[in-house]
Amino acid sequence: MVQNKAFLYKAVPDGWPVPGKDLSVEDIGFDETAPPPPGGFTTKNLYATYDPSQRGRMRDPSIKSYTPAMTVGKPVVSVHVLGKVLKSDTPKIKEGAIVLIKGYYTEEYSAVPESALDRTAVIDPKPGVPLTAYLGALGMTGMTAYGSLHEIGQPKPGDVILVSAAAGAVGQTVGQIAVQEGLHVIGSVGDDRKLDFIINELGFTSGFNYKKENISDAVKRLAPDGIDIYYDNVGGELLDVALQNMKDFGRIVACGTISTYNNSGASGAYGVKNYSSVVRKRLRWQGFIVYDPNIIRWEKERDEKVARWIADGSFKSVDFFTHGIDHAVDGFLGMLKGENLGKSILKIADP
Amino acid sequence: MVQNKAFLYKAVPDGWPVPGKDLSVEDIGFDETAPPPPGGFTTKNLYATYDPSQRGRMRDPSIKSYTPAMTVGKPVVSVHVLGKVLKSDTPKIKEGAIVLIKGYYTEEYSAVPESALDRTAVIDPKPGVPLTAYLGALGMTGMTAYGSLHEIGQPKPGDVILVSAAAGAVGQTVGQIAVQEGLHVIGSVGDDRKLDFIINELGFTSGFNYKKENISDAVKRLAPDGIDIYYDNVGGELLDVALQNMKDFGRIVACGTISTYNNSGASGAYGVKNYSSVVRKRLRWQGFIVYDPNIIRWEKERDEKVARWIADGSFKSVDFFTHGIDHAVDGFLGMLKGENLGKSILKIADP
Ligand SMILES: NC(=O)c1ccc[n+]([C@@H]2O[C@H](COP(=O)([O-])OP(=O)(O)OC[C@H]3O[C@@H](n4cnc5c(N)ncnc54)[C@H](OP(=O)(O)O)[C@@H]3O)[C@@H](O)[C@H]2O)c1
Ligand SMILES: NC(=O)c1ccc[n+]([C@@H]2O[C@H](COP(=O)([O-])OP(=O)(O)OC[C@H]3O[C@@H](n4cnc5c(N)ncnc54)[C@H](OP(=O)(O)O)[C@@H]3O)[C@@H](O)[C@H]2O)c1
Repeated sequence: MVQNKAFLYKAVPDGWPVPGKDLSVEDIGFDETAPPPPGGFTTKNLYATYDPSQRGRMRDPSIKSYTPAMTVGKPVVSVHVLGKVLKSDTPKIKEGAIVLIKGYYTEEYSAVPESALDRTAVIDPKPGVPLTAYLGALGMTGMTAYGSLHEIGQPKPGDVILVSAAAGAVGQTVGQIAVQEGLHVIGSVGDDRKLDFIINELGFTSGFNYKKENISDAVKRLAPDGIDIYYDNVGGELLDVALQNMKDFGRIVACGTISTYNNSGASGAYGVKNYSSVVRKRLRWQGFIVYDPNIIRWEKERDEKVARWIADGSFKSVDFFTHGIDHAVDGFLGMLKGENLGKSILKIADP
Repeated sequence: MVQNKAFLYKAVPDGWPVPGKDLSVEDIGFDETAPPPPGGFTTKNLYATYDPSQRGRMRDPSIKSYTPAMTVGKPVVSVHVLGKVLKSDTPKIKEGAIVLIKGYYTEEYSAVPESALDRTAVIDPKPGVPLTAYLGALGMTGMTAYGSLHEIGQPKPGDVILVSAAAGAVGQTVGQIAVQEGLHVIGSVGDDRKLDFIINELGFTSGFNYKKENISDAVKRLAPDGIDIYYDNVGGELLDVALQNMKDFGRIVACGTISTYNNSGASGAYGVKNYSSVVRKRLRWQGFIVYDPNIIRWEKERDEKVARWIADGSFKSVDFFTHGIDHAVDGFLGMLKGENLGKSILKIADP
């Protein structure tokens, strides 16, 4: 037995998750002498992603949703775990390979059963593409951004796009894709450092800090002729302001409503008033989940284009690391608070 | 000169239109001895439609919208005026013809200029189809219903559709089309007589009176497995309840928000809370205006199918008459209050 620290899910949070009570880091042990599970493999894990959707899975299992509830007492399920294979009982996966496992436990060592093989990919990074890009722009986050922007947003060069949570994982990916494709890209962020970053490092056309400037004034100032595409990660007041400032036949890509995730109960929810714009302006407001067929069908195109842009230096894979599984709870809460700039990643061990 | 009473637009209403101050009926005179306008024609008018969109055109002309503001001092513009031609200066329109003019004045006699020819159609009713059907199911109302239901709603036999303002002009048309196409059709109405009518006369599957029953309970009771299509004529609380009860991949056809039309200012507007369903359930929520190309492209199919259904007796053209132009103001306000059952029509003279 070796030490195997895991990021544990201990209880269903009521509102904001409480460290110690709802979430903790504990040693669950790993038998390094045991053979791999039949047909499966074992890993030493290097990275795990943090995603806001994890919060949605920390719920009473009787509440149905598109992803299953996590199991109390087990490690937190990450959207992607990236590990190095220790032992393998399947010819598909070689010892020493780097694997990306979808929807797996956040822990130092894993014994991965055969049943997880169809959500495991062997990673062979293209030249010029960092390993961690497969957790972000070339992972689920990038699929979310690329698929939905094209499927629902229908971008054309010159279109004005407003992106909320623009320095977050999805937001900065959407914004960079839009920059690549010749759109006029406006970002909304909650902090001046993020604002500087999206404009000066990522090439956004403009942006504003919604905590400092009146949102409605900012949108009118930066998009005086209106918005063609609103890429919505947050919901709430900015959604209302966007509705008021859409152009005719505009598209709203409904990706997430992070401003509502830690409200318990709907009674405190923000009420959107400008929904009559949907009729008057003939808007199309559409939601999606990254695993939907109409989103996933963009995967090949995403893989090719985004990898090429990263390799030629015109697109940044922006990682925001929490170093060491001991800090897993803080890293998770930090992401929920919006402390990250780019993709939130828990670094578990050096590659 | 003969008497020519007109339904006059006298001032921009602030909230609810005030009879006498904002709207009135007055004689504006008609010279029956004068020749028709060059290239135009004159009519004795038989019918004019009432439509909620007229309220939207009674606004300060500096406020832009998809239809122009009406002109203070002129007659109220109706969506359709149906008249008999008295004199004509164009070979396209013969004396004695029945014509349907889009967007024309509500008055007993009209001198129609050449410029209105492209919005004038000569009507030759098919056997078994009443003349007034061309003001409703075969007019703009029916185009609204048929085009948007198919373009945005994408109905399939067996789908559950909830229709609001279901006994109104658009609502009863949508509901009857859905019945014809094998959907499970639920109507929301504001009065028991309307409820009886949509179920027992129009063949809706079920319905409820939103003024008597808790809306959320009613929807859960009548659509326990959820809604595939919500056809929204009203906005407000029912929209919120619909959002909560949509099935995955459901469609919301955003036709109108009549519950908001007589609120002055947005501050009193209802705030929709359940918008996060758009993401979670991958809803498509889309607005339209009947004159949009994607709606109008259904015109030929609508003309054929709806006329056939009316002629074979399986589809009712439901007219709600206000008799005589002297009652034009009351008829208009009655429609805004929801007193109509079916298409509101001002009858000006016998055919
Ligand atoms: N539909 C899908 O399939 C799918 C897939 C992946 C992600 N998503 C959704 O996409 C959104 C972004 O995800 P992500 O991975 O990019 O997350 P992320 O990297 O954690 O970024 C989230 C950002 O949201 C902002 N934020 C946090 N709390 C907020 C609040 N109360 N009000 C307004 N903004 C707040 C913060 O930025 P600021 O400091 O700038 O406010 C934060 O950095 C989330 O809503 C997520 O659920 C959806
Ligand atoms: N997008 C387009 O191109 C287009 C074209 C035509 C019409 N529309 C819209 O479609 C909707 C219906 O038009 P229509 O011609 O069918 O009108 P209608 O025949 O006048 O029917 C409207 C019905 O709405 C209900 N209603 C009135 N005030 C209400 C309120 N405050 N809250 C809830 N319900 C109320 C009433 O029925 P109850 O007694 O049952 O409440 C009324 O009978 C309107 O919103 C209109 O603007 C849109």
